[in-house]
Amino acid sequence: VNYGVLGTGTVGQTLSAKLDELGHDVMIGTRDVEQTLARTGPDRLGNPPFSAWHEQHPGVKPGSFAETAAHGEIVINATNGQATLSVLEAAGADNLNGKILIDVANPLVFSQGKMTLSVCNDDSLAEQIQRAHPKARVVKTLNTMTARVMVNPAMLAEDHVVFVSGNDAEAKASVTALLKDGFGWKSVVDLGDITTARGVEMFLPLWVQLMGVMGTPLFNLKIVQR
Amino acid sequence: VNYGVLGTGTVGQTLSAKLDELGHDVMIGTRDVEQTLARTGPDRLGNPPFSAWHEQHPGVKPGSFAETAAHGEIVINATNGQATLSVLEAAGADNLNGKILIDVANPLVFSQGKMTLSVCNDDSLAEQIQRAHPKARVVKTLNTMTARVMVNPAMLAEDHVVFVSGNDAEAKASVTALLKDGFGWKSVVDLGDITTARGVEMFLPLWVQLMGVMGTPLFNLKIVQR
Repeated sequence: VNYGVLGTGTVGQTLSAKLDELGHDVMIGTRDVEQTLARTGPDRLGNPPFSAWHEQHPGVKPGSFAETAAHGEIVINATNGQATLSVLEAAGADNLNGKILIDVANPLVFSQGKMTLSVCNDDSLAEQIQRAHPKARVVKTLNTMTARVMVNPAMLAEDHVVFVSGNDAEAKASVTALLKDGFGWKSVVDLGDITTARGVEMFLPLWVQLMGVMGTPLFNLKIVQR
Repeated sequence: VNYGVLGTGTVGQTLSAKLDELGHDVMIGTRDVEQTLARTGPDRLGNPPFSAWHEQHPGVKPGSFAETAAHGEIVINATNGQATLSVLEAAGADNLNGKILIDVANPLVFSQGKMTLSVCNDDSLAEQIQRAHPKARVVKTLNTMTARVMVNPAMLAEDHVVFVSGNDAEAKASVTALLKDGFGWKSVVDLGDITTARGVEMFLPLWVQLMGVMGTPLFNLKIVQR
């Protein structure tokens, strides 16, 4: 399967590298390919420049947002939640129509040391995406854990859970197969239609607090029953 | 310790019964004691009337909100989140000053089959309570699981987690002792000050979705690490 991964940050890099490793044909999308490749210093989070990552993953082709969306039979939104809608507009509705669009982003806003969501409660980023691109088959997933855990759930000591939300049952089944057979997830919980993305996006404030308390992002949730 | 439990619904009944069983002197508060005791039919959720519960728990004294808050050395808010601020006003600031006020409520609004929160993102019910009663020592806890699990965590198959949030370290330590020694919790995670109540309250939409998917409220979260 050809994948188009929108976003060259840690999440986009981690998902692209894993999909490449699985043998897929992967393009990774950025607003300005030349500018992204030309950066030599670390980004504002202290990560190495994209070019250093790209040298280690030559199989993943960089492209514009539109080229990347056109390349992908399945498209992944791994952009900053505040940029998502403009990135998808640049990607082009025609390049998304009928395709599975996996949304892993969160609408986080950091301001003066506090984190809030730019949309929540009676709406969600995933619903905004679905409304803006009604012919895309949006599946929200993987937004409730850090990138390394997304593609390597077995790194944690016990089984733990990932959620999927979306209106298209067939699209959710395809994404569930990728999560299980590709990434190694054992517990994939289908929460329901795209409005259930509200719940997983509103979980982020608690996730960020837990990361602070535990001093690591390498954790996830397990649901315990009787 | 004398406890005052505000709210005669399932949560108030369950917490009162457990505290009574533990040997504490417990009063349970309602707006109109005579009217609450006079009800003979089931409530709108189909639960038996308060009087039936009270016959089985004669050690728990019913009282007005003000009497209950005055009685409690520790006061518990187990009211509907939409009623909480008016209940605490009726309880009386003087009856809350200096006391630990355990807030287990959630600001849930159900309308046309959809659930939202009446406050979230940059504020929370617990913060509203703390602002309205600055001399009370508010501790948010136990709002992330169903009542039966609150007082009997051992009923689930594995260890799982409960959170505490609050500005007063001593108050959180007292509440943590009640959770561990009284109710049997093994994992109590201190998230930080009262603003961290935003995260646990914003978890509720996901909790409600999970209850729907699993067909039972008898579950809780475990944090899995490496």
